[in-house]
Amino acid sequence: MSNSVETMRWTGDALELIDQRLLPSKLVYQSCGDAREVASAIRDMVVRGAPAIGCAAAFGIALEALRRKDNRRADFEAGLERGFEVLAASRPTAVNLFWALDRMREALAAAPGLDPRQAAESLVEAALLLYRADIATNRAIGRAGAVLIRNGASVMTHCNAGALATAGHGTALGVIRSARDQGKRISVIANETRPYLQGARLTAWEMVQERIPVTLITDNMAGHVMRMGKVDVVIVGADRIAANGDVANKIGTFSLAVLASRHGIPFYVAAPLSTIDIAIADGSAIPIEERSASEVTGYGDIRWAPEGVSVFNPAFDVTPAELVGGIVTEKGIVTRPDAGKIRDLFKT
Amino acid sequence: MSNSVETMRWTGDALELIDQRLLPSKLVYQSCGDAREVASAIRDMVVRGAPAIGCAAAFGIALEALRRKDNRRADFEAGLERGFEVLAASRPTAVNLFWALDRMREALAAAPGLDPRQAAESLVEAALLLYRADIATNRAIGRAGAVLIRNGASVMTHCNAGALATAGHGTALGVIRSARDQGKRISVIANETRPYLQGARLTAWEMVQERIPVTLITDNMAGHVMRMGKVDVVIVGADRIAANGDVANKIGTFSLAVLASRHGIPFYVAAPLSTIDIAIADGSAIPIEERSASEVTGYGDIRWAPEGVSVFNPAFDVTPAELVGGIVTEKGIVTRPDAGKIRDLFKT
Repeated sequence: MSNSVETMRWTGDALELIDQRLLPSKLVYQSCGDAREVASAIRDMVVRGAPAIGCAAAFGIALEALRRKDNRRADFEAGLERGFEVLAASRPTAVNLFWALDRMREALAAAPGLDPRQAAESLVEAALLLYRADIATNRAIGRAGAVLIRNGASVMTHCNAGALATAGHGTALGVIRSARDQGKRISVIANETRPYLQGARLTAWEMVQERIPVTLITDNMAGHVMRMGKVDVVIVGADRIAANGDVANKIGTFSLAVLASRHGIPFYVAAPLSTIDIAIADGSAIPIEERSASEVTGYGDIRWAPEGVSVFNPAFDVTPAELVGGIVTEKGIVTRPDAGKIRDLFKT
Repeated sequence: MSNSVETMRWTGDALELIDQRLLPSKLVYQSCGDAREVASAIRDMVVRGAPAIGCAAAFGIALEALRRKDNRRADFEAGLERGFEVLAASRPTAVNLFWALDRMREALAAAPGLDPRQAAESLVEAALLLYRADIATNRAIGRAGAVLIRNGASVMTHCNAGALATAGHGTALGVIRSARDQGKRISVIANETRPYLQGARLTAWEMVQERIPVTLITDNMAGHVMRMGKVDVVIVGADRIAANGDVANKIGTFSLAVLASRHGIPFYVAAPLSTIDIAIADGSAIPIEERSASEVTGYGDIRWAPEGVSVFNPAFDVTPAELVGGIVTEKGIVTRPDAGKIRDLFKT
């Protein structure tokens, strides 16, 4: 079933996260006890995926509040403030992180007269609410998007926009799960997604768990596979969507969208409204995280590139809205997204 | 200098090949004593790159002849025939292999009355001739192509079409070397080229040796890097070019050509005439080798994909002629290649 993968668990006084760096060879949970530990887990990619990062950050604030619930109110608030800061600095691109922290600030502000103990309880409740809402949102995205996938379809996806990238069910993989749950036969082509191999390690693992047939390819095979007629539809997640529909997502997404366009293959993005940053007019203003050269020069302890080589390692790219056939949200599908249609999403 | 990398050495009774599987961490030569050993070295990718495979195969026939030079003529010819067969079966896509074997058959046929000892000498001479001609050809390709690269240019390349892929100097990297030798400042963006990482391991290594600035990226970053305006020209090698100008080259080349076209970036192929297969009308008839799943599911002894995943691992793809701005040959540049222009190449 869809919740077979439990990306994160709330124990009441700790957040347990699957250490996604070790998948698929080991399924190990890492326990975080305060905001700093959650921020480290986000930065080091113990947990990744825009919605999952948002939920983890919310729990990070809840943990910090619990840890300080016997402090005086001023110390409590100062400590929480440092928690907000360290979490906001963990990763720059996925907007769900900042969205979730804003929700937690609102929860804190809603209880100005409470003592720290009561405020901590409110913040735990707020984090649990965000977590449960994310699962419900993903199920709604799945139901809305399933119509895009016909029986027998071959679906290409990139990176991991699955249960592991969210509180559960997944966005792009949530659409695939929901279509499968409707009785459709679906096969998946997973791009391995260098340098961090989220496709090879995480998406392949999730699909194997679900018994959905999955074929792994290297990223540079995508165009060839499309040209062979082996792809019916491409569906990916998103880390931040600008007000005009430009989509920041895992590096390589833009290339896929260009290739899909050339081959007349529909290209969809599945993401909750919390991924849409209406404050940013277009994709050019989305900050693109650059990560360590060591992710590109090798893998784990192996180094395969020579000394003396420079490396460029942007973790994301931006796909212009013109290449996006539709954005699948919990409020339905925005076909051929533009600023007007996206504005309308937030009105209803 | 351009011949600092000696891909293969002829000792008089053995062919020594750099074991390219070990680069860049170790520079080790593997010695081959007969056709079967050379065929294994080609199949296992000790040596790779279309022109280098051709030269190695020619030496394989020469070695087989030397080993059998004291046989009776009938045994000598039967043994050589098995040598031709095992070499022809080593890898299917690069046509230079078959071209070189044809040249060696011609050399054998030209000496019908000779005894095996004399025939063996002729075959050694023929192999050395092919080897030296390949270096000269690459230098001519380099001179012809250097005009395409302006001073200060950022050149993207894929896989390794360098000295290591040829007898020396290289095709695509030969153009870069020649332009540099003319005094132009050039920087190279090397796509890592999964699954076998010829870009990360071999092209990066060659460029570091040459002190040409090189930046390594993963293959899925190419589109993003082009969109950022960081690429002035793309130049790659080829494994087989059809009569109409369709180009089979390392997997990922087709995607690059599509991306270059979208961004208005010139896309060139550098290859000797021996890479052109005028017997094949278009790219759809070029056999595309599929290699082991283990190249995709991990690297070396590491496995990162889960059990239960299927793999598709085509080693090459076909770029249609319409996306090729020009083919740089030892006879000059064929701009916007088509069947007529390619036919003309073989007339003059």
